[in-house]
Amino acid sequence: MSPQAGLHTPDSLRSPRTTAASTTPRAVAALARCRELVEPALRKAVQGLHPEPGRIAAHAFGWCDADGTPGVGSGGKGVRPALAVLGTQAVGASADAAVPAAVAIELIHTFSLMHDDIMDGDERRRHRDSSWKAFGTGPAVLAGDALFALAVRTVAEADDACGAQAVRQLAMMLGELVHGQADDVLFETRPWTGPHAVGLAEYRAMAARKTGSLLGCATALGPVLAGAPPRLTDALAQAGREWGLAFQAVDDVLGIWGDPQVTGKPVHSDLRRGKKTLPVLAAMAAQPSLGPRLERLLGGGTPPDEASVRCAADLVEEAGGRAYALRDARTRVAAARDRLRAEPLVTPRVDDLVALSELLLDRRV
Amino acid sequence: MSPQAGLHTPDSLRSPRTTAASTTPRAVAALARCRELVEPALRKAVQGLHPEPGRIAAHAFGWCDADGTPGVGSGGKGVRPALAVLGTQAVGASADAAVPAAVAIELIHTFSLMHDDIMDGDERRRHRDSSWKAFGTGPAVLAGDALFALAVRTVAEADDACGAQAVRQLAMMLGELVHGQADDVLFETRPWTGPHAVGLAEYRAMAARKTGSLLGCATALGPVLAGAPPRLTDALAQAGREWGLAFQAVDDVLGIWGDPQVTGKPVHSDLRRGKKTLPVLAAMAAQPSLGPRLERLLGGGTPPDEASVRCAADLVEEAGGRAYALRDARTRVAAARDRLRAEPLVTPRVDDLVALSELLLDRRV
Repeated sequence: MSPQAGLHTPDSLRSPRTTAASTTPRAVAALARCRELVEPALRKAVQGLHPEPGRIAAHAFGWCDADGTPGVGSGGKGVRPALAVLGTQAVGASADAAVPAAVAIELIHTFSLMHDDIMDGDERRRHRDSSWKAFGTGPAVLAGDALFALAVRTVAEADDACGAQAVRQLAMMLGELVHGQADDVLFETRPWTGPHAVGLAEYRAMAARKTGSLLGCATALGPVLAGAPPRLTDALAQAGREWGLAFQAVDDVLGIWGDPQVTGKPVHSDLRRGKKTLPVLAAMAAQPSLGPRLERLLGGGTPPDEASVRCAADLVEEAGGRAYALRDARTRVAAARDRLRAEPLVTPRVDDLVALSELLLDRRV
Repeated sequence: MSPQAGLHTPDSLRSPRTTAASTTPRAVAALARCRELVEPALRKAVQGLHPEPGRIAAHAFGWCDADGTPGVGSGGKGVRPALAVLGTQAVGASADAAVPAAVAIELIHTFSLMHDDIMDGDERRRHRDSSWKAFGTGPAVLAGDALFALAVRTVAEADDACGAQAVRQLAMMLGELVHGQADDVLFETRPWTGPHAVGLAEYRAMAARKTGSLLGCATALGPVLAGAPPRLTDALAQAGREWGLAFQAVDDVLGIWGDPQVTGKPVHSDLRRGKKTLPVLAAMAAQPSLGPRLERLLGGGTPPDEASVRCAADLVEEAGGRAYALRDARTRVAAARDRLRAEPLVTPRVDDLVALSELLLDRRV
């Protein structure tokens, strides 16, 4: 699969304020360059695993089919390892110095997808069977554990004076990731209205943990390993967190209005599952009468019918939920850009990071 | 539950060569002392988790029932954290310095039980529902992940110059643990005879990874954190690995001949599941004609009947498998004792460690 696949820009998500026509080729080139650097090290690390979890990992990374036939799928766009490489270069360190961080981040990302798919019962991932669906729940639990352990080891063994600090960052991120996932699962069971309903602030805290922490760590971990000053690593971590929240906001829009042909998920999938995502919460905050209506449409205890789900999506859109989420994403990407441009970082690599973050706004999957 | 519970000595496992009458009270006192030191820190660490995985963890540690009622079960004997404390004191450091290592080791142990019970389909653990049985598979996966992340963080944040080295030890152990579990799961599906049958050496490598690595790390991690010289940490790690293999050998004996009333598992449970454990492999090595007989009795593809399982257990015992495993355990405990007594360690704490290791031989659960 070419690096461009899945990265075309749908008009509905395009933002004239942040996305210049020139940023997409720049971002795509940066992704390809970083992938070329990181993938051999990632493959080598995974080859050191026990063959069974190794086989499941290779499938999840898109290197082989479930029966071991090589090269049939996509392992994702590689945004997170690219953030690690570009962040490291932005502080003036070599791209090579970023490789352990980039490998660790991609391992953690894949571990979290494997285990989250078990928790969420998701049978499909990147247009293929998810790990538990293809190999069974037990083997997928173990393969996730293997990637988790390998990630910690990769950072701990990076031969560097700053390894301990990097492991602390990684460990803190891992704790946040789990906390965010626990909230995300829990939110599905919370009511649509009343004192126990999920609020916008609570949602943001969850998304900051579940998505922001990993992207923040991705962007800062290489620089921490390279011994960059805290002011710069903090700025990069903060920018990464903003990108994470922006990514999640776009993900939430795609979870309701994404094209099933492209996302590989059923239309309106998040609404079917009762997920209280940003567009829904923003719409309910703007229009308090919406909560009881959504509850009637979606909260009956049984899976809602097609017409109810479509009606709910329309109500959320009419109340401005979709526009709010996309505006939120654009605002965060702009804030991160401004934050980074104010720091003494290597300008072309900051430009690459900014281009990559604008691509996040334009994604369809 | 008192610290003595489950630690009475069955005559069948008693070894006059290694177990003096005086060692049991010494070991029980050491376990109680270490538990008193470590448990408050462990509870504090777990209280910092998200409430959902925190609740599942509290149940697994025996602090509450599945509905949250406090104090109904046992979280195990606390052998691993005690090894961490005693190992640290044995190199002359304070018991307090061992607490982060002891907490991390107990977190990892519990993580591995939670996830292993999912993989093995085990519904009972310590006479109660296992985590996945009580709370569901997804929540148990997440709770395990939370404990794993917390363990890494606990070691990474131990305010010590040797934190990086300690994290490396932890990470290496985690990789071994997963590798060993992958082999253990795989061995159940391997044939009883022929070129693909599991050999004794392969079994030992699996047990060294699955059980030896955690006990080795438990015994050496505190000393590493305290900055002890490599010669001493290596000796302690090696002793811990031997104890792990001894523990596994006794576990294998209990998995076939243990009293179901005490172990909480069905009689001959390992044979029912086709597990190729040490007594079975040793018996087959001593008596090559045994393999095809066991295959006929246990390997039919369907769960074997009661009479076949009983017959298989008797055949393994008659071929000396049970005696071999117990002898193997005693030899390892003696080797570890001799290894530690040859090093310049704090004698009373080495005596505690030796007493504890002899208790492992005497356990019934």
